[in-house]
Amino acid sequence: MRISILLDKFKKGLNAVDKIVVSKNTLPILNNVLIKTEDNQVILSATDLEIGVNYYLGGKIEAEGNITVPGKVLSNFINSLNEEKISLETNNGILSAKTNKSEANINGMSADDFPSIPKVVGKEILEIDGNILKTAISQVVFSSSYDESRPVLTGVYFIINNNLLKLIATDSYRLAEKTINIPTTDNANFIVPTKTIHELLRILSGNEKVKIVVSENQVMFLLPDMDLTSRLIEGEYPDYEQIIPKTFKTKTKVSTTELTNTIKTASLFARENANNIKLTFQKDHILIEATSSQLGNFKSQISCEVVGEDNEISFNARYLLDALNGIDGAMVNLEMIGKLNPGVIRPDSNSGILYIIMPLRS
Amino acid sequence: MRISILLDKFKKGLNAVDKIVVSKNTLPILNNVLIKTEDNQVILSATDLEIGVNYYLGGKIEAEGNITVPGKVLSNFINSLNEEKISLETNNGILSAKTNKSEANINGMSADDFPSIPKVVGKEILEIDGNILKTAISQVVFSSSYDESRPVLTGVYFIINNNLLKLIATDSYRLAEKTINIPTTDNANFIVPTKTIHELLRILSGNEKVKIVVSENQVMFLLPDMDLTSRLIEGEYPDYEQIIPKTFKTKTKVSTTELTNTIKTASLFARENANNIKLTFQKDHILIEATSSQLGNFKSQISCEVVGEDNEISFNARYLLDALNGIDGAMVNLEMIGKLNPGVIRPDSNSGILYIIMPLRS
Repeated sequence: MRISILLDKFKKGLNAVDKIVVSKNTLPILNNVLIKTEDNQVILSATDLEIGVNYYLGGKIEAEGNITVPGKVLSNFINSLNEEKISLETNNGILSAKTNKSEANINGMSADDFPSIPKVVGKEILEIDGNILKTAISQVVFSSSYDESRPVLTGVYFIINNNLLKLIATDSYRLAEKTINIPTTDNANFIVPTKTIHELLRILSGNEKVKIVVSENQVMFLLPDMDLTSRLIEGEYPDYEQIIPKTFKTKTKVSTTELTNTIKTASLFARENANNIKLTFQKDHILIEATSSQLGNFKSQISCEVVGEDNEISFNARYLLDALNGIDGAMVNLEMIGKLNPGVIRPDSNSGILYIIMPLRS
Repeated sequence: MRISILLDKFKKGLNAVDKIVVSKNTLPILNNVLIKTEDNQVILSATDLEIGVNYYLGGKIEAEGNITVPGKVLSNFINSLNEEKISLETNNGILSAKTNKSEANINGMSADDFPSIPKVVGKEILEIDGNILKTAISQVVFSSSYDESRPVLTGVYFIINNNLLKLIATDSYRLAEKTINIPTTDNANFIVPTKTIHELLRILSGNEKVKIVVSENQVMFLLPDMDLTSRLIEGEYPDYEQIIPKTFKTKTKVSTTELTNTIKTASLFARENANNIKLTFQKDHILIEATSSQLGNFKSQISCEVVGEDNEISFNARYLLDALNGIDGAMVNLEMIGKLNPGVIRPDSNSGILYIIMPLRS
């Protein structure tokens, strides 16, 4: 292989693929990035066997070829350079990278040993604006579970149906649902691993169009310069809609910022107590309280109009803060039935996001 | 105690003292900040028994008193507030902190158990501009040693003599010397612990005048709103001047940025090899090389006029980068005698900083 590419493009490509590289992998070649030429393009690839990424670069190809080199070494080296162009050449399993001033020779491994990233043979089910997708997944992904004993909850559930895309994540203590209107004639349900979602979040710039292609056990996100392929999580997603309360007894609307700041302060006093924060709704205010036998206690009032009955409920402050962080409006609605029922948090604006949090015993 | 203070001032004071608080201290009260009233001022104090800090605040004092409360809890709480004023009141060992909207009750400990920070009874030996002091100590402190087997090297050596302040730090592998012209009629030599220097670096805003007061075994840095007291390190500082080369055989001047960037890149290939980087000086350039048996190798040339003999030397890349980071000029001078003699690094400008690095075997 002998190629010449613009350093800025190469940096961008490497930075997109090299996070997939797991640095302490039992299979050493998974620490490597594959560089190959194909169809007059330079392709950078990385995989951890569950997720695979290909990045497509233009460049001057003088001789076809391929090699794999340690991803961290290559990207640290490339990111440290400030020149315009770089030429890459393979020679006896070594990658020679030359700029006008410098030359590095990096020991590689044969591309033949690099696991192939399977092409997803399935249907393209929708095209979506990168920015909309990025916002949506960032609003739900933190609610997914880390508990491997229920694998279906360790991903984000995609439902495509009736010109709607719904994204759902839950760890059974809280739930996030985002609804997006999007023209599609297809129906599909699938669960994308949380790790893939985080990777997608990282590589989406927001300015691109993203196509989603699904097969029985894989999904591919197609971006203009790259594609991300991932396995799907097998299994039946729980019937989550049944836990979303359809009514409420108490409802109020407060400033998102003021509530967030107050919960943050209260949470300092809730840490020893399972992050337990008590909210008391009374006519014209919410009272927020936290108590620690060791540290002391905290209380604060936020003025607001409370509709319905006086009421009280205790939540995990972290779940509340996560949800408030996903709210994209200046005002947030809190709705509750009683202290044993899940609470509902949604922005005053119609942005399609809804959070449910299970109560704690106070 | 019953006082009322501006929240911004209280935040500033707490943030200045609370870093002294060691969170896992064997003596629990050292985790606490002392709040007391004295001479119509509110004083915040913290100590780790080696360093003590007092911060002086104005405020409305309705009742005199004192209390100690956990520093992290108090500062996290105070920093989370966005209001204008806060009132503090003690009640049965509890500190009640109230704002317009909120109230926290923080469990405290008696001020009687708080170790007193001794006043330094000594002479004021100089007054220096905070900005000059801050720059100077940041240019030398990283060269001090972490090895407790030679305690004198675990501090920064101050020499005050003949209208000069010299600051010296060395770990015996490299040395930094900063010389400042300053009017003083006193002479003094003392070694300030590195931890104190870091603390001083943190609290200096750069806009203040700093007075230095020294006694036989303590030093006090007096700032407008606060003072920092520290023990001194006992012992004789080594006669460091003898290792500063007085001549050179090879000398060159290069761009500080270009040299820094090249060494950074080279160091990626030097990690497995004790950060060993080889510099070869030849007529019109320096050649910089690093080799790793596992990763590969790197070389790069920097154009420059080399005065004197062709020569070569190997350095620890980290020491070189530390020194280059302390150079405050666009161009840097490198001077050497031979590959077994220490190398000298100094800015082209006359800023009083000088670095010596011992060579490695190449």
